[in-house]
Amino acid sequence: MTETTSTSGNDDVLEYLLRLGDDRLVLGHRLSEWCGHGPILEEDIALANISLDLIGQATLYLGLAGETEGKGRDADSLAYFREGVEFRNLQIVELPKGDFAFTIARQFLFDVFSLHQLEQLQKSANKELAGIASKGYKEVRYHVRHSSEWLQRLGDGTAESHSRAQKALDELWRFTGEMFVGDDVDQRLGAAGVAPDLGEIQAKWRAMVSDVIQRATLSIPSDTFMMAGGRSGRHTEHLGHMLSEMQIVARSHPGAAW
Amino acid sequence: MTETTSTSGNDDVLEYLLRLGDDRLVLGHRLSEWCGHGPILEEDIALANISLDLIGQATLYLGLAGETEGKGRDADSLAYFREGVEFRNLQIVELPKGDFAFTIARQFLFDVFSLHQLEQLQKSANKELAGIASKGYKEVRYHVRHSSEWLQRLGDGTAESHSRAQKALDELWRFTGEMFVGDDVDQRLGAAGVAPDLGEIQAKWRAMVSDVIQRATLSIPSDTFMMAGGRSGRHTEHLGHMLSEMQIVARSHPGAAW
Repeated sequence: MTETTSTSGNDDVLEYLLRLGDDRLVLGHRLSEWCGHGPILEEDIALANISLDLIGQATLYLGLAGETEGKGRDADSLAYFREGVEFRNLQIVELPKGDFAFTIARQFLFDVFSLHQLEQLQKSANKELAGIASKGYKEVRYHVRHSSEWLQRLGDGTAESHSRAQKALDELWRFTGEMFVGDDVDQRLGAAGVAPDLGEIQAKWRAMVSDVIQRATLSIPSDTFMMAGGRSGRHTEHLGHMLSEMQIVARSHPGAAW
Repeated sequence: MTETTSTSGNDDVLEYLLRLGDDRLVLGHRLSEWCGHGPILEEDIALANISLDLIGQATLYLGLAGETEGKGRDADSLAYFREGVEFRNLQIVELPKGDFAFTIARQFLFDVFSLHQLEQLQKSANKELAGIASKGYKEVRYHVRHSSEWLQRLGDGTAESHSRAQKALDELWRFTGEMFVGDDVDQRLGAAGVAPDLGEIQAKWRAMVSDVIQRATLSIPSDTFMMAGGRSGRHTEHLGHMLSEMQIVARSHPGAAW
């Protein structure tokens, strides 16, 4: 009985680690598509650095997921040798990078979620997870500052930058609900003190997002039908395209340097 | 008379800074093409970090070039609003990224050049230049370690990795001579204590490159006809393609965030 519970707890932790890792792996990869295409050198470098932080965080979560699973898979196997339906990321992170305003608005909406998620996760009963979250939290504090300052520059900038930023928020809004949709895994891990309470994160997210959007002289999109499904492997068509590109080098030379 | 000499010295310094900056801007951009396409996550992150170092170094050299020129151009204007014929980089850095062996071999050949170039430049009579070189030197010491270790892993690895690494060295060799071709600018700046002696750099480059290639169980390519022309704006067709992609975002939205 104890063993069954423990195995089941293990499965929950594995599932939760994949969610944490995949959000960051997919978003980091999307952001890396800006490499060498930023509007100015400084921003090119900033976006690449944030992308590297996210991929670095993903490597840690996926590495711990592999250990938790105990079947010999490491972060690389999990990143490069799973199919789309096995990915557990939010749909918002897999959407194509769009224009610069779309990228900034997406980063902002995710960063604020990640900030409050990781802040709580530092207190997780799972000490390894708490350690990874603590390292990531320091990075995300900088990411939030970067994306919220840019959102304000765009919103409070030219007529074009304002309208592009508003359009981006409007398009992204229906993908934000999924961040706070809990399931059995969240409930069990919440009760065990491993995962944070999504309702609390949502309240903090909503307050900070509203504040920055208002200071950016932008409008908070009206509540609408919310997309979901990423956490259980239902993804937009965009994830498959991205993965096939991301995984091709590793898959064509498994176990080798090519 | 004094003013003419001084202006001419200024032109030499500007020219020299563009060479330093463009080598690193173009190579950093080529390397950034690996973003999200590395064979393993750790290497993906390492290549992206090296790319960022190079683009960061380029930003400093080009920034100082803009100040030296005194016509109000900054690093961004120089990176995004010059045509191919105005670029002063070596041809070796503009070649397409090729496979992983080609990328590693190119990095290695350039890193060893850059290491000895920057080591000397730290003693430049131009103090601002010396300061930038000093910062870059620390980074390049790590870059050389990375590329030479990889070259040895590939050379001393599987039959395929060995043959790919040898092929890469053979293809790249004819582009290495240009590193050491001096002109009037080098001579005048050498006499003024601003730029290092290319012959001395060549001897050190040759010694280190030979040593690592031998330890990698690879063969030093036989000396051959050497390509040149990059320093005076004659480039391969590849630079134009790369620049059109690199410059499009900045050019379509000059002075704006897009």
